Amino acid sequence: MIRKSPDPESCIRPEAAEVLSGSFLAASRLIRRIEAGDPAVLADLADLFPFTGNACVMGITGPPGAGKSTLISGLIRRFRDLGLRVGVLAIDPSSPVSGGAILGDRIRMQSHAADPGVFIRSMASRGGAGGLSRVARDVLVVLDALGLDMILLEPVGSGQSDTEIASLVHLLGVLVPPGTGDGVQTIKAGILETADIFIVNKCDLPGVPEAVADLRGMLHLRSRPGWVCETCARTGEGTGELADYILSRRTEIQSWQNRAPAIRDHFRSLVSRLALAHLEKQVADRIEAFLAVPENDRAASDNPYRLARELVEQLVRP
Amino acid sequence: MIRKSPDPESCIRPEAAEVLSGSFLAASRLIRRIEAGDPAVLADLADLFPFTGNACVMGITGPPGAGKSTLISGLIRRFRDLGLRVGVLAIDPSSPVSGGAILGDRIRMQSHAADPGVFIRSMASRGGAGGLSRVARDVLVVLDALGLDMILLEPVGSGQSDTEIASLVHLLGVLVPPGTGDGVQTIKAGILETADIFIVNKCDLPGVPEAVADLRGMLHLRSRPGWVCETCARTGEGTGELADYILSRRTEIQSWQNRAPAIRDHFRSLVSRLALAHLEKQVADRIEAFLAVPENDRAASDNPYRLARELVEQLVRP
Repeated sequence: MIRKSPDPESCIRPEAAEVLSGSFLAASRLIRRIEAGDPAVLADLADLFPFTGNACVMGITGPPGAGKSTLISGLIRRFRDLGLRVGVLAIDPSSPVSGGAILGDRIRMQSHAADPGVFIRSMASRGGAGGLSRVARDVLVVLDALGLDMILLEPVGSGQSDTEIASLVHLLGVLVPPGTGDGVQTIKAGILETADIFIVNKCDLPGVPEAVADLRGMLHLRSRPGWVCETCARTGEGTGELADYILSRRTEIQSWQNRAPAIRDHFRSLVSRLALAHLEKQVADRIEAFLAVPENDRAASDNPYRLARELVEQLVRP
Repeated sequence: MIRKSPDPESCIRPEAAEVLSGSFLAASRLIRRIEAGDPAVLADLADLFPFTGNACVMGITGPPGAGKSTLISGLIRRFRDLGLRVGVLAIDPSSPVSGGAILGDRIRMQSHAADPGVFIRSMASRGGAGGLSRVARDVLVVLDALGLDMILLEPVGSGQSDTEIASLVHLLGVLVPPGTGDGVQTIKAGILETADIFIVNKCDLPGVPEAVADLRGMLHLRSRPGWVCETCARTGEGTGELADYILSRRTEIQSWQNRAPAIRDHFRSLVSRLALAHLEKQVADRIEAFLAVPENDRAASDNPYRLARELVEQLVRP
């Protein structure tokens, strides 16, 4: 645990304190407020943030049917055997098309639902790409502060971009279905560049050695290192080795030096989002005040393009 | 024609002048610049705007297979017989799923492609909902300035919201498939509230009188009036009557009084978009300047939530 001690002068809000005590209920309440866009939740997140840095967040992506949920189930079992607390954040696509898959995933994970060391939550990605990252980043702070050691993030369906998932996690794993050797070709280029761990799953199927060789060859060509492993999620073969590898990366992930760039990015997006929300309101007020003058209103209706450029110049003068 | 005379002092850019002379090629070039987000295009749009107000923009929506493209083809034929110049703007959904339908639509409209009085263009809705309205609104200015009399806007697939389409057009028509009487129930509530014209298409199918009666009953319940008609797009039956009704609404649509609220909204969104793009850049610069101070950088990494709120207060001070 590398939890930092909070400032002894500061006082922690009761909701945040409950989360710190490990209450799943309090965490769920806070997450619901984050999803609802409650601005007051930022004060709670500010209370929680100094207690984060324990969790290792891993994204697990891959084509539908590759065995994501079964693999996640196996990893949860292994982490629990080691006494770790685990969180699963399933990100539903905004499209209703794959509703069935989400339900299926939930059912498959039911076996862990009663385990007090496993927190499972699904989150709708609600259209706006930026919206998902924002909400997910805040939710991950809550899960980390809750004391979870490993958080598995599963993008369900294709509702989110791979770069977006990569920006949220410490480690990105991709399931590669073996087969006729074109498994590697079916993975999107973005994932091939950003993933840390390549999991050739269903290793009882033919084509596994070819897929592994393809991946190793591909990794030679890219600048960042990557790890290739074989698993059979259904029988559990290889899952333990994968879990151990993930844990071996944890210390490095937890170091402040490695966390700092992501936190800085988080700060940038927080400030920019909050400031722009305010400024948007200020701009809207200025526009209404401008249009309240009859000759401005007439001129704006005569040529909105011409007048817009004039008003904008006034508005953005630093 | 209610084209306003431009200010005799002002000079029109050559690109805009070419559009005003009716050049489809110049219009296509300008539209491409709008889609690419070229900021300089606003100057051309400012040149063109005083020459708009001639076109009547009608949206035609309806479930897939309801016969939208065939109906549009029939309307084009009728408008052309009356000597009107016609534009068709097909808005492709961002989802690649219905790619086939778009191609099909294009092929069906091929018969008009060689007609110098018909301008057909398809536009990708490119993800962001707001992005579509912005681009479409600017493109409609070009089509109007090009001298087109009728512009038919066809949302292809379900990539865009109905309220978004309604905000772009003067008249909204919805195709209602007849059938077992549940046709009306299958139309989304939003469309039932916003549509102006309800077109019971394929009137050789059973269930037409029931669908018409259902629609008339529904229109009694809503505050705005609406018009119900029967067409058979395939044989052309009823299409002439529909076209004549649309044209009968044109004078009212062209009146400055009726156009002003939409132009005012256009002005609001233009100013807000341009101003926020500038402000976003200013905020980003301020954040970098802030983080360039080592102790700020350290503090931001220690607790991004706490420091974000402090910095935001400085940034948004009016």
